[in-house]
Amino acid sequence: MMQPLPPGSTIGILGGGQLGRMLILAAARLGFKCRVYTDVVGPACDVAEASMIGAFDDAAKLSAFAVDVDVVTYEFENVPLAAAAAVERIKPVSPGPESLKASQDRLIEKNFVSELGIPVAPFAPIDSDTDIDAAISAAGFPAILKTRQLGYDGKGQVRVANVDELAAAFAEIGRQPAVLEAVVRFAFEVSVLVVRNAAGETRFYDTTRNHHDSGILRTSSVPADLPAPHQLRARQISERIATALDHVGLLAVEMFYVGRENSEPLIVNEIAPRVHNSGHWTIDACQVSQFENHVRAVVGWPLGVTDRHSDAQMNNLIGEEAHDWRRFAGEPGVCLHLYGKAEARPGRKMGHFTRLKGRSSDG
Amino acid sequence: MMQPLPPGSTIGILGGGQLGRMLILAAARLGFKCRVYTDVVGPACDVAEASMIGAFDDAAKLSAFAVDVDVVTYEFENVPLAAAAAVERIKPVSPGPESLKASQDRLIEKNFVSELGIPVAPFAPIDSDTDIDAAISAAGFPAILKTRQLGYDGKGQVRVANVDELAAAFAEIGRQPAVLEAVVRFAFEVSVLVVRNAAGETRFYDTTRNHHDSGILRTSSVPADLPAPHQLRARQISERIATALDHVGLLAVEMFYVGRENSEPLIVNEIAPRVHNSGHWTIDACQVSQFENHVRAVVGWPLGVTDRHSDAQMNNLIGEEAHDWRRFAGEPGVCLHLYGKAEARPGRKMGHFTRLKGRSSDG
Repeated sequence: MMQPLPPGSTIGILGGGQLGRMLILAAARLGFKCRVYTDVVGPACDVAEASMIGAFDDAAKLSAFAVDVDVVTYEFENVPLAAAAAVERIKPVSPGPESLKASQDRLIEKNFVSELGIPVAPFAPIDSDTDIDAAISAAGFPAILKTRQLGYDGKGQVRVANVDELAAAFAEIGRQPAVLEAVVRFAFEVSVLVVRNAAGETRFYDTTRNHHDSGILRTSSVPADLPAPHQLRARQISERIATALDHVGLLAVEMFYVGRENSEPLIVNEIAPRVHNSGHWTIDACQVSQFENHVRAVVGWPLGVTDRHSDAQMNNLIGEEAHDWRRFAGEPGVCLHLYGKAEARPGRKMGHFTRLKGRSSDG
Repeated sequence: MMQPLPPGSTIGILGGGQLGRMLILAAARLGFKCRVYTDVVGPACDVAEASMIGAFDDAAKLSAFAVDVDVVTYEFENVPLAAAAAVERIKPVSPGPESLKASQDRLIEKNFVSELGIPVAPFAPIDSDTDIDAAISAAGFPAILKTRQLGYDGKGQVRVANVDELAAAFAEIGRQPAVLEAVVRFAFEVSVLVVRNAAGETRFYDTTRNHHDSGILRTSSVPADLPAPHQLRARQISERIATALDHVGLLAVEMFYVGRENSEPLIVNEIAPRVHNSGHWTIDACQVSQFENHVRAVVGWPLGVTDRHSDAQMNNLIGEEAHDWRRFAGEPGVCLHLYGKAEARPGRKMGHFTRLKGRSSDG
């Protein structure tokens, strides 16, 4: 097992977005330097000690990047496995290859979670038109057709209600490998942020209740108001997944809460082997944020406490909503975070703010 | 008055130390870029968008630095006035020239505070050996001989008990312009962190109780356990100073608390026109830290709330104490901050940690 990296060491981060930026701010608090590898200049570059611009499948360039850092992590799980393996020949990469593999392909992810005995929505792969009938038998309608790779924030997803819509949707995504998933009726969505270190110790932030709109996360709130046994179940599911992956770092597990009358109240929707938008409230409501705990796990430090001192609601600022920064900056009780992105394109995450309230309860 | 600078703007920071580093981390949260001007590479450079290395009296180089930023501030008050004036001809500098002038020379500082009707310890200037007798008449013994310029963390200060020691001390500091100050008997030391914007609005963090050892700050705690009228008096004093300076930004006012039986319970020791070590607890115990509020004032944004959600004690990690990072990192309830300095020289501030407790009371 890796010796704890001393302060002053350099962390390499694959990906240059806002998650990388917030990882760097957390790492800097602990005395670490951070270098960024990214295919386009992004918000993380402003606070990185240095940045290298390159493609994520350029194994040679990634290897060169790895030489000058002490450990490598990512804020972005779509690093090709071969490239990640090339980096790992030079420096430790956390989270490891199992986490990357399971999270960058929806079919592998669903099979993996399902094989752990954890419920997922009925699903089936569609690689070609000839798979469509079998997929309908497995998933039924309404369903969602999702590309196996590179989807996020609702991209690469089409909701379909019948066989004609499905055939059209499959054509629309260019007949790339996909998964058809049953639409699940649920009360609300939650996510668990679990951090795990190389010794197998795990800690959980309070389960977060999430509200999405058009596939994009809008708000995350704690407490989630889950009944205590279901809160416990959410943690068990997340711990089982983190352990099966031998995950080192922060892992986010998104679930549908299907209600207390069900024997199994939670269905896993998706996992992300990294810090996660639904955990941004931990910056302002916890002593140790998801970002600092990810860093701690990756550098081999003791994990920090995940307790929160306040109730919190995080609101994303999407696109032009960020133009209202003056209003949010002046609102008492609002912790404002802006990512320094120049252009407020529609659907682009420009920042977020978290409202804190006195702490009410677990849940 | 300056229009609020939009996110994405660039803040220039004079000074490359840990205060600059923490300012940058706070500014980055709000979407600002930061550039550093420093005479030696320091902890701020790791997180700056860019750094320029130059002397603080190189007005031409400072002017070149100012061209590429939108506003200038400092983490370090010993910028020569002529150099600051050169910068100000190009870009706004906050805090302004009055704040710099009053805080970089102990004689000017003491005269300024005293002329506001605020108590300071008895003092007198010593420019040459011929001033010694008059200074003794003013200050008495025991006293402290302090250089007028460039002292910090107890440097440039000698405690003297009689005329021979004073003559020797004056020779020891090279007969540079100095101030002789009476040693004040006090119960404890406090500081007030006040933030003021260009519109003259002021906000106060809870008065902090400080413990120094050999001239170096060791701990800062809130609540300070000052009686409410004295807490109020501490704020009045700080507001009067901030207003008289037309200060924009964070201002720290260090005071001796001489006890409740005195008609004037507080004596001003020193002012600092910048974020201050005794305010580091605000990072972890407040929604908006001293660093963020300094940035907000400097860029013309609304000030943030200064409420704290927790009681707190900040402990500096001096020199080799920082080698114990493993222990502090593993202690629940400890928020650890390390500055990324490579060499743990004696007396060097390497980091700090803040212990949080449930909130007890104002004071």
